[in-house]
Amino acid sequence: MIPVVCFVGAKNVGKTTVLEKLIPELGRKGYRVGTVKHDVHGFEIDKEGKDTWRHSKAGARAVCISSPDKLAIIRFLEREKALGEIVMRYFWSEDIVLAEGFKSTHYPKIEVFRKEISASLVCGDPVKHNVIAVVGDAPDLSEVNHFGWDDIASLAEFIEGRYLKHRKKKSVSITVDGKQLVMNDFVRQIVGETIEGLLKTLKGWENPEHILIAMKRDKKTD
Amino acid sequence: MIPVVCFVGAKNVGKTTVLEKLIPELGRKGYRVGTVKHDVHGFEIDKEGKDTWRHSKAGARAVCISSPDKLAIIRFLEREKALGEIVMRYFWSEDIVLAEGFKSTHYPKIEVFRKEISASLVCGDPVKHNVIAVVGDAPDLSEVNHFGWDDIASLAEFIEGRYLKHRKKKSVSITVDGKQLVMNDFVRQIVGETIEGLLKTLKGWENPEHILIAMKRDKKTD
Repeated sequence: MIPVVCFVGAKNVGKTTVLEKLIPELGRKGYRVGTVKHDVHGFEIDKEGKDTWRHSKAGARAVCISSPDKLAIIRFLEREKALGEIVMRYFWSEDIVLAEGFKSTHYPKIEVFRKEISASLVCGDPVKHNVIAVVGDAPDLSEVNHFGWDDIASLAEFIEGRYLKHRKKKSVSITVDGKQLVMNDFVRQIVGETIEGLLKTLKGWENPEHILIAMKRDKKTD
Repeated sequence: MIPVVCFVGAKNVGKTTVLEKLIPELGRKGYRVGTVKHDVHGFEIDKEGKDTWRHSKAGARAVCISSPDKLAIIRFLEREKALGEIVMRYFWSEDIVLAEGFKSTHYPKIEVFRKEISASLVCGDPVKHNVIAVVGDAPDLSEVNHFGWDDIASLAEFIEGRYLKHRKKKSVSITVDGKQLVMNDFVRQIVGETIEGLLKTLKGWENPEHILIAMKRDKKTD
């Protein structure tokens, strides 16, 4: 699985600024970074009058614009997507995903902390809420790793050591109707080997790195 | 596989206008529509100064913004994505994808045609280039289906009859390193049944409609 780290903290504490420094540090180490921003209020990204905007106004549920150097997709949702689903669906060639927000997920969190803005961590108990580090002002806590505002290089090393250096080379994840199946290592290995063995015999298999299988079933036939 | 139909034609001929009328017609028939716009010149979608814009400027290869009612992702590319790859990756809960542009793909095409703008079809020979219909002005050709500017309801029926009414309930597609594996029906069935049989025994399987499996392998181990 792609490791995910959430950057949390009070509004305007400087989460995006920390990410702006951290992303190139990880990039210099050779890692490919993806980001996810949580926006609880909704956002406007497409521009009125553009073709994609007209498609979505006409009722398209998902609109994509594709150009030689980038691709964008806007998907209209009936229910909010969980961070895990977003990562699995949209991030496949990255080494790590850094999220901004998503305080109430189970993912490891790094809190950006500024004493002027909040007296204590917005996450509360770091151990209970899987806070692996604090960036910025030092909190009055000894049991949590701390990196100063100008120590983002050390933060990058910390993240690398914890999530990137010893990553398993092989992984498999399965989503059924948007929910990720939980598998232990044994099951994961059996599933992975079976699928790999099955696909290896097919034309077009040339020792690939990434495999994606999409299946649609008729629920009624089961 | 999700059916894909490309709407092609000269610049400013009215492709988006036709789609604006067609999308709700298909929606009224109960189909979920996705769209892809081909922009050969590149596009600007994110707004300067926004958090996601700052993430991408800092070097993130893919940035996502997630809110309760919609989700957007911008991915920076080393090479342009093929339409087939875009459809497989990003459209899984739609019944049909309508593309604007992509004249040189193998997908079925509908040409939007206006005599004032071009004397003949931009696609050339309709049979050779898989043009299944012309919308707008009538071309001087008898061998191609034609729908007038105000006959988009009939066009929707034509598309429904051709691609939507008799769709297979079960499908499986496999992408290895971004390239879709070609499978005949026999192989597709074996692969689908094997994977389904394997996954059915796992916890969390409750007769799902959509299954997505993502695998990452170490190329060197092969």
